[in-house]
This record gives sequence, structure tokens and C-alpha cells, in this order.
Amino acid sequence: MIDRALDRLREKRPAFEPGHVWLAGAGPGSMEMLTVGVLAAVMEADVIVYDALIDADLLDYARPDAERVYMGKRAGQPSASQDEINRRIVELARRNLRVLRLKGGDPFIFARGGEEAVALHEAGVPFRVLSGVTAAIGAAASARMPITMRGVNNALVLMTGHDKDGVTELDYNALARLDQPIVIYMGLTYLGEIAGRLMNGGMDGAMPVAIVQNGTRPDERILISDLKNAAADVRREGLKSPSLVYIGRVVPVGETLRQMAAEMA
Amino acid sequence: MIDRALDRLREKRPAFEPGHVWLAGAGPGSMEMLTVGVLAAVMEADVIVYDALIDADLLDYARPDAERVYMGKRAGQPSASQDEINRRIVELARRNLRVLRLKGGDPFIFARGGEEAVALHEAGVPFRVLSGVTAAIGAAASARMPITMRGVNNALVLMTGHDKDGVTELDYNALARLDQPIVIYMGLTYLGEIAGRLMNGGMDGAMPVAIVQNGTRPDERILISDLKNAAADVRREGLKSPSLVYIGRVVPVGETLRQMAAEMA
Repeated sequence: MIDRALDRLREKRPAFEPGHVWLAGAGPGSMEMLTVGVLAAVMEADVIVYDALIDADLLDYARPDAERVYMGKRAGQPSASQDEINRRIVELARRNLRVLRLKGGDPFIFARGGEEAVALHEAGVPFRVLSGVTAAIGAAASARMPITMRGVNNALVLMTGHDKDGVTELDYNALARLDQPIVIYMGLTYLGEIAGRLMNGGMDGAMPVAIVQNGTRPDERILISDLKNAAADVRREGLKSPSLVYIGRVVPVGETLRQMAAEMA
Repeated sequence: MIDRALDRLREKRPAFEPGHVWLAGAGPGSMEMLTVGVLAAVMEADVIVYDALIDADLLDYARPDAERVYMGKRAGQPSASQDEINRRIVELARRNLRVLRLKGGDPFIFARGGEEAVALHEAGVPFRVLSGVTAAIGAAASARMPITMRGVNNALVLMTGHDKDGVTELDYNALARLDQPIVIYMGLTYLGEIAGRLMNGGMDGAMPVAIVQNGTRPDERILISDLKNAAADVRREGLKSPSLVYIGRVVPVGETLRQMAAEMA
């Protein structure tokens, strides 16, 4: 049945041709959130250039003869620069291989997939982009926290907590005034700084905050706090990356919905 | 191989029990973007309560004896109210069925999944949430438009174009000042109004805009415009729902990246 699904999928989408690169998102970690298209591509690729993958099982679905190239960040070890990654995927494509560039989450959401796409374009290497479930969405489902809710919010802001120069430069006054839920990727390092800027911009220090560590994984942890205490609570509880920070009035909805799961456990 | 993937997945996640409801996202339409977890749930469900599905093939993977209940919006016909949908999924769960509530995109992104989760919670019906690729992400991949790009933006705003009372109420001045890309779901009806409010708030009328109709589907259409002309261009070209509107400096990156695909076609 499922093999038929894959066969039908392959008829409908372009063939994975030698010399092409597919930039694919593996989702937030749980195998459950991997897309059928990405799974099919893993099974077809000649070479897989992968980041720090959350479900290590995924590479078991690659062909036994497929080359596996790790190019992610590992704590305490030098990691490949974006330029090196760009060069490597271009070079592999020029060896006429089917290159799967596999990243966590979605390639186009705070994952540098855009830069890789531009590098491939400039090198004249044909590519496709295969979406993944982005971490903000997967971790929200896992935490039972609707991140849009009629009557609560009309918009949602996704942001990154830092860039290469430090805390993310944004108009925090405007962000506070917008008064819509915010999800921060890579948000732990500068959480105090970001919270301070939002409060300076007028956001209430009592605004609910949830921090989800290892979202969708068996070791998922959820910490509930508020804007003025979040950074101190994270330090005291020792939360680590990968974590997502959710700020806004959708957070208590998640608390209510998690109650039932807890009562039944 | 893929059957092994499904078997392993089933060992790792909670069993789909009779009397439970799973709220699942089918993604933006392409079978390629369906998650493995949702496909497995389609194959296991006793009853599938589905919205206007984009890939009609999906229901073929249901068990032959599974009940199929359409509760979506169809042009020109009365559609089920949210209250009716909530009541129906509760009632089906109480008949001790495995109920799959299948929606386009992701249940927690402008899809009323939060309201269904609250209704299930209040009725004491156990549920899980299975993420899907949300339309903004799937259509961006399909249009080769990175929606985050280092050096271009640090944040991304997802918003809905209207609520039950008309154009979405938001602080458009703050949104304009934030100066980050915006993706509007259900954005065609009030596009002129929203563009006007953003320009009043100081956003440049020359800000690039892309409208993607039927994103990820074979009949996908992309219209490039700018903030001051977008609504008139949509009318002249006759774009229809479902469409997503992308506003921001990431739009031209997508134009560049589509070039190569066009040259090779």
C-alpha cells in the first residue's frame, strides 16, 4: 500500500536526476513528521549531505551504497562553514551524483537553504526544494499548543534569536506593539536581552512564555514562564538547545490542553 | 523498506486507539509534502473527517471499510459550521472509533485545529495533533522563494487576510515598521485594503509582492507585483483562492532562483 504511494508519488514529481541537488527538510526530529517526498529522496540519493539529524534512523533508509557526508554542527568540534557546504554540494553534483542535502526542519525557515539555493544557482547546478515541517510547528503540535487561535491572534511572528553579530536586530518596539505571538528559533542565548527589549517596547512582563526543548523527541521538556522571568527560569532549570521560545496569549491554551494528557497518563 | 519505516514509526509513537481523535495536517496539497505519520494514520483510521483535500488520491490509502466524512467548504454550497464539525468528531469518538480529522496544511496554523482541540478537551475525548507542512512553507519551496535569508530578514510574519468580521484587525503601522516579510493566508479578498494600510504605516509601495495560486499543485501560478499594484494585478490576471501573498525583499530572491528552472525547461 505504502509502496504504491511512493510509486505514484514518483510518477507525479520530477525524477531525481544525476547531477541535481535536492534541498530537503527532515522536519523537527520525529520520524512521524518526515514527509513522504523526503523519505523517497533518501531512498534514491547517491549521496546524502546531512546536518545534525534528530532521528538517526533516517539514514538507515538510504541505499547501502549511498555516500553519507556529515556536515553539521557538533558541540565542541569545528563545524563546516556555509561556504564549505556550498562548495561541497556543487562539487558532488558535478560528479554527476544525485545529491540530497538534508537539513533539520524546513530548508527555507532559518536554515540557510536560501544561501545554498543561491550558490547552486550561481554554479548552474539544477536543484529542487523539498519542504519539511518547521520546528515551530512540530514542537507546537507535540506540546498541544495551537499557535493561531481565532479570537486570540490573527498573526504569528517567527524570528531567529541571533545572527552572526549577536542578538537579532529588529524593531522590538514595533514587535511589541504588534502584540501577536512570537516564536524564537535559537532563542535561549539572548532570551533575557530579547525579553528586555520587548518589555521596553511596552509588552507586559506577565506575557506567558513557553520554552520547548527537544520538541517532538522522547526527551521533550516544556517550561512555562512569563516574559520577565523566562531567562532566569531557563538558567535555573538548565534548559539547553535545541529549544524554541513561544511568547504570547496562545501559551495558556496549550497548558489547558496538556492537562488532559497528563490526567490520562 | 518503506513498510519497515512505517512499522518502526508505529512502535515509536502512541497507538491510534479506538475512541481517540487525531487532528492531522495533510500539507499544502502535493502528496510529496504529506508526512509519514499522517499517511500511516490515514491507513489505520476507522473514520476520516476531511476538509477540501488538495490531493484526492490521499483517501485511496484509507482502509476500504473506513468511513469517509466530507466536512469542508465547497463553493456555492452550504458548508458545515465549526460547531457542527466539533460535535461530529466528538460523537464519532464516542462511538469508539479511531477518528482522523484531516485538514489542509497544518492544524495549528490558521486552520481552526485549536478550536477543535479545545472542543475535544472539553468533551473529555483524548486526542493527538499531527503536524503538516503549512501552505506558506510548501508554496515557498515550490516557488523557489526562500522566505528567510541571512542579510535580508531576521523574522517572518504569517497572518490571515480576514476574520469573520472582515479585514484582519492588526496594528498595521507596527507591522509596516517591523519591516520583515509577511505571508498572508486567505489574502486575496482584502489585499488592496491590507496594502493600503501597510503603505499608510510607511511601507514602500514598491515593496515586492508575489502571489502564489494553487501552490505545489500542477496548476500552480505565480504573479509578481509590488505593494501598490498587487490588488489591481490580481484582479486583472484573475487569480483565485487558494492563494498566498508574500510581501518583502525575499520575493526577488525567488525570481532569480526561478530563472534557472525556466531556462532549463
